Amino acid sequence: MDMDHTLDQIQWNADGLVAAIAQDWQSGEVLMMAWMNRESLSITISSGEAVYWSRSRKQLWHKGESSGHRQKVKALRLDCDGDALLLAVEQIGAIACHTGRRSCFYRRYEKGDWQVTDAVLKSPQTIYGSRND
Amino acid sequence: MDMDHTLDQIQWNADGLVAAIAQDWQSGEVLMMAWMNRESLSITISSGEAVYWSRSRKQLWHKGESSGHRQKVKALRLDCDGDALLLAVEQIGAIACHTGRRSCFYRRYEKGDWQVTDAVLKSPQTIYGSRND
Repeated sequence: MDMDHTLDQIQWNADGLVAAIAQDWQSGEVLMMAWMNRESLSITISSGEAVYWSRSRKQLWHKGESSGHRQKVKALRLDCDGDALLLAVEQIGAIACHTGRRSCFYRRYEKGDWQVTDAVLKSPQTIYGSRND
Repeated sequence: MDMDHTLDQIQWNADGLVAAIAQDWQSGEVLMMAWMNRESLSITISSGEAVYWSRSRKQLWHKGESSGHRQKVKALRLDCDGDALLLAVEQIGAIACHTGRRSCFYRRYEKGDWQVTDAVLKSPQTIYGSRND
């Protein structure tokens, strides 16, 4: 099949990116949201592991490249207007967030503020040593 | 509590928007991704119903204003870098997508293409008459 045909159906934004939501394939928990460009989506599809585009580092970001917390893609979905992807993933290490929490969405709006509700499972220093992922 | 304080913790993008993912509060199904600006998030918090910013129409978009498919917000979460929101919603009418499907993510990548996997539960014409939501 033709990868270009697949990628051409994405509505890439002005920066050439599409939003990508990663969801645990079993629990349904939303783990993180990041971005992909054509190359990262193409590699994600061909490799079966989530590869994003790091907007801060301006480079391909193979999730888990330094932490080991890779994401095996079980299913890949596209939304109605073609500008958001939904990845059902097996989260290796059960930690998606660079803070060492399971999900990046660990703050809940309660009593007028964003309250941290989820525990750090592993300290970032233990995960990364000196750098982030 | 101070709404400005709450909103100031969002990392608004260059267009003054933040990504907002709506997830069914019971099943965990991801229903849609849209965008919010300060005003729409403020109204979402104060009203308890999801109000987005329509980038195409350039106006506030009270989800369900024409379809009746409103979203009651059960929980609101913010991610680690503050540029994505996760809404746990009760989807009124069990249809989030303007195509009449439960979720906007009704296409799955299979066999080299985006395959439609989810049925239309109610035709857009029945939902809207002549316009979209």
